[in-house]
Amino acid sequence: MLDLSKLYFPTLKEDPQEAEIPSHKLLLRAGYIRKMGSGIYTFLPLGWTVLEKVKKIIREEIALTGTQEILMPILQPATLWHESGRWDDYGPEMMRLNDRHDNQFCLGPTHEELITSLVTNELKSYKQLPVSICQMQDKFRDELRPRFGLLRTREFLMHDTYSFHASQECLDEFYEVMGTAYGRICDRLGLEWVRVEADSGQIGGSVTAEFMGLADNGESDILFCDCDFAADAEAAKVGLELPTKPQGELEKIHTPGVGTIDELCEFIGVTQPETVKALCGTAEDGQIYAIFVPGDHELNDIKIEGLLAGFRFLDDEEMQKAGLPKGSIGPVGLPDGIKIIMDESLRNSEYMIVGANERDYHYKGACPGRDFNVDIWADLVLAKEGDLCPNCGKKLACKRGIEVSQIFQLGTKYSTAMNAMFMAEDNSEQPFIMGCYGIGVTRSMAAVIEQCNDENGIYWPMSIAPAHVVVLPLQSDDENVMQAAQKIASELESAGVEVAIDPRQIRPGVKFADADLVGWPYQIVIGKRGFENGVCE
Amino acid sequence: MLDLSKLYFPTLKEDPQEAEIPSHKLLLRAGYIRKMGSGIYTFLPLGWTVLEKVKKIIREEIALTGTQEILMPILQPATLWHESGRWDDYGPEMMRLNDRHDNQFCLGPTHEELITSLVTNELKSYKQLPVSICQMQDKFRDELRPRFGLLRTREFLMHDTYSFHASQECLDEFYEVMGTAYGRICDRLGLEWVRVEADSGQIGGSVTAEFMGLADNGESDILFCDCDFAADAEAAKVGLELPTKPQGELEKIHTPGVGTIDELCEFIGVTQPETVKALCGTAEDGQIYAIFVPGDHELNDIKIEGLLAGFRFLDDEEMQKAGLPKGSIGPVGLPDGIKIIMDESLRNSEYMIVGANERDYHYKGACPGRDFNVDIWADLVLAKEGDLCPNCGKKLACKRGIEVSQIFQLGTKYSTAMNAMFMAEDNSEQPFIMGCYGIGVTRSMAAVIEQCNDENGIYWPMSIAPAHVVVLPLQSDDENVMQAAQKIASELESAGVEVAIDPRQIRPGVKFADADLVGWPYQIVIGKRGFENGVCE
Repeated sequence: MLDLSKLYFPTLKEDPQEAEIPSHKLLLRAGYIRKMGSGIYTFLPLGWTVLEKVKKIIREEIALTGTQEILMPILQPATLWHESGRWDDYGPEMMRLNDRHDNQFCLGPTHEELITSLVTNELKSYKQLPVSICQMQDKFRDELRPRFGLLRTREFLMHDTYSFHASQECLDEFYEVMGTAYGRICDRLGLEWVRVEADSGQIGGSVTAEFMGLADNGESDILFCDCDFAADAEAAKVGLELPTKPQGELEKIHTPGVGTIDELCEFIGVTQPETVKALCGTAEDGQIYAIFVPGDHELNDIKIEGLLAGFRFLDDEEMQKAGLPKGSIGPVGLPDGIKIIMDESLRNSEYMIVGANERDYHYKGACPGRDFNVDIWADLVLAKEGDLCPNCGKKLACKRGIEVSQIFQLGTKYSTAMNAMFMAEDNSEQPFIMGCYGIGVTRSMAAVIEQCNDENGIYWPMSIAPAHVVVLPLQSDDENVMQAAQKIASELESAGVEVAIDPRQIRPGVKFADADLVGWPYQIVIGKRGFENGVCE
Repeated sequence: MLDLSKLYFPTLKEDPQEAEIPSHKLLLRAGYIRKMGSGIYTFLPLGWTVLEKVKKIIREEIALTGTQEILMPILQPATLWHESGRWDDYGPEMMRLNDRHDNQFCLGPTHEELITSLVTNELKSYKQLPVSICQMQDKFRDELRPRFGLLRTREFLMHDTYSFHASQECLDEFYEVMGTAYGRICDRLGLEWVRVEADSGQIGGSVTAEFMGLADNGESDILFCDCDFAADAEAAKVGLELPTKPQGELEKIHTPGVGTIDELCEFIGVTQPETVKALCGTAEDGQIYAIFVPGDHELNDIKIEGLLAGFRFLDDEEMQKAGLPKGSIGPVGLPDGIKIIMDESLRNSEYMIVGANERDYHYKGACPGRDFNVDIWADLVLAKEGDLCPNCGKKLACKRGIEVSQIFQLGTKYSTAMNAMFMAEDNSEQPFIMGCYGIGVTRSMAAVIEQCNDENGIYWPMSIAPAHVVVLPLQSDDENVMQAAQKIASELESAGVEVAIDPRQIRPGVKFADADLVGWPYQIVIGKRGFENGVCE
């Protein structure tokens, strides 16, 4: 039984200034966590208890998939990351250090390199495959701006699974087994969740899905369709419905002071989708690119980085040097040597409103093929509400979500790079076909709170609450009340219920407020009057 | 049920070259751990299972002391270590790194700074004390020479407890509660252990005890007496029995080629205890010290460092510069300005055999007070077998031990340095009186193996074995044998026994060898002949 008079759970009366979203505020206020540095937290007893329950649920469901648990180290030798090529790719998010002999290490942001190196030479034959191995280990990512409490930290707990297969079919099958397990874990955590198409980012591979907890404060936009399509906006390939207008004459117009899409629309009297937005950047190849997307859409960072390795935007000075007048850039009459990339959705536009590459001038009626040539057509936009479902063509709805877990088909990306081979049935040497699967353990805890809170505090689902019920004797100095409370608490505990009791000598109002804040699923209130009437609430 | 045909436990036929002691060899050979770098290991499924069992025993026993579990981060801001003064003191064992904003961090080698900063401002009154808080967290120490497998690693799991008290009496009482819990944990791990007086080293504080697993390959010498005295040799204050000889004349003797105590003894025909050994060093103060201990004892590094902050030995060049002839140094006629430190045990020696500070010459009959003056008398020797018990004066015996845990009374060392105060009963502000207590979790696992192994492998105690019993069907292709094996395994499991079964189609000899290597407490062997006779072994 949890005795709140002895429990270390310092509550705060005020919302901490730094906390912007409910889970962050409530975890701090109710004494679940404390900040030790930017993006670095201590879990206090209540926080630790919830975390252990989340861990237990994950372990139970993953064990059912036949996955075996191990524990890999946090310190990872740089040599392994050089083999995979990610030491240089990973960037400043990877925390690096040297030991006393000046050997380089990182604090594992993920463990693909380690697990691949581990099984190499120990899994030799297709007869030993498939094998699936998991761990629950701290990960480190030096976020540029840690924020939102446990949602974006620099040190966090992850459950990660890695699977090794002899064939793509075997991976396909196991990928779905893990997807099902991940769904069950979300269910048992009490999350309202959705599985969405996603982008594989740093991890690599082609097929991947995210499990999102729906929440207004989520960092991701999720696009939905009635037909069951769901995708992370960053990853979604969608259709755009753009106004079509027949070809016309190219007409140069004077647009004094116009520098943004909004100003252009107002000045000419058109809607955003009728205009074309320009962006300028460069990539590893040193080439300068002018990129064009529909005026009502944003460029998708992930898609452009996928198209052009090392992509970045030009700064003002670089634009000036390249002869690109900010606010008036268009595809007609660009300086020599600049390549044009245009979003797929504009392929059928024959009457574009674009910049004229001259301050205070725009063109109406620009037509690709006639007035300018496009070097690359590509899917470039960040999808949004109202775009068209790629499956059925209906308009998509949008909700915000928090990514709690993700599954990946890695294929042979790591095994080829790290020469991790097995003997196939035909005696040939083949690289392992790999999958990897990760759950943000501490992040999941915060995602649940984002869904389960009101103005008074948290309301935990039974499955991961620090205890199922709290017993609140309102007058701790009244012997009858205290005895009744103790009796009820003991009887519940004997019946297998997890019980907390709050015998602290504090005002009933404070006791209620703390109980609401902490978020026990049930409160049993025993007061003087109730006791006399044989009633508890 | 653990099915060994599916378990990832790659065994090795040969002892790995790098492994010097049984636990290291066997953990690698039986597929419990794999090395990922110097002093950095992965726990494979069997190793992880044992580790979880060790963790569970520790948690159960510590929970009984009323201690509450939390989880502090691995990344620790340097600022907290500057407050305690240990950022500079800790030396190259502490692993340090900078984040992307160039803020300094260390990877926690221990957590006194974090816990003290955590409770400050949240524990305000004596009424909230005592409080005891623990965690199970990875620790990092950049050992100069990681070795002995899990005994000396750079990343290891520790269970650490911190207690906060309003009075010394309260700390004394809780210190013993924890001592008892630590003893019970050793018992439950199946360790043959002893509690010894110890030195507090880096952690600080005055009262401390170590819990040692007895093992021939232990790194520590433990001194015992029939009277129940037991101490780490490095920490022991003991009596020395030195030969006494009456004062005589100071006599200079020619000792050509004599540079060591052994050579001196042989040349003059005396025993080691009759001679005096000289060592030269310097400290933070820049002063040069000549240090003298009985010829049969070593200087205790910890004691001299306790006496002289920043102590180090002189190198050959420094000795030459100071006019100190290596191999012939003595207290009589030292160059000016060099201070003499002499071990307590020599106080009554009036006839010393010492160097003459001149190559190839020694003195016989040197007498302190008459021939030279001692600047500091101090307890300086490393105790050894045959020294005298400080309690009863009997001769001490010696065994080797592996430190598995240690308890400390820290007093107010950290609370004073970090201004961690509470309001006492008399309304005065007082620093917390603290204790701390640590168990090497991964180290304990290795210590058990050092005690529980033979030429064939490990033999685990039931409490932490990966399973209680293994069922070995010798002919996996024989349906009767396999059915009988499955039946026995299932029945045992239903009865609450943890069962492993080895249905692999391999030679019985290999199956036996693997079972002996892994170290299941019981083996149930089912063979064709046995089956026919209704017998299993």
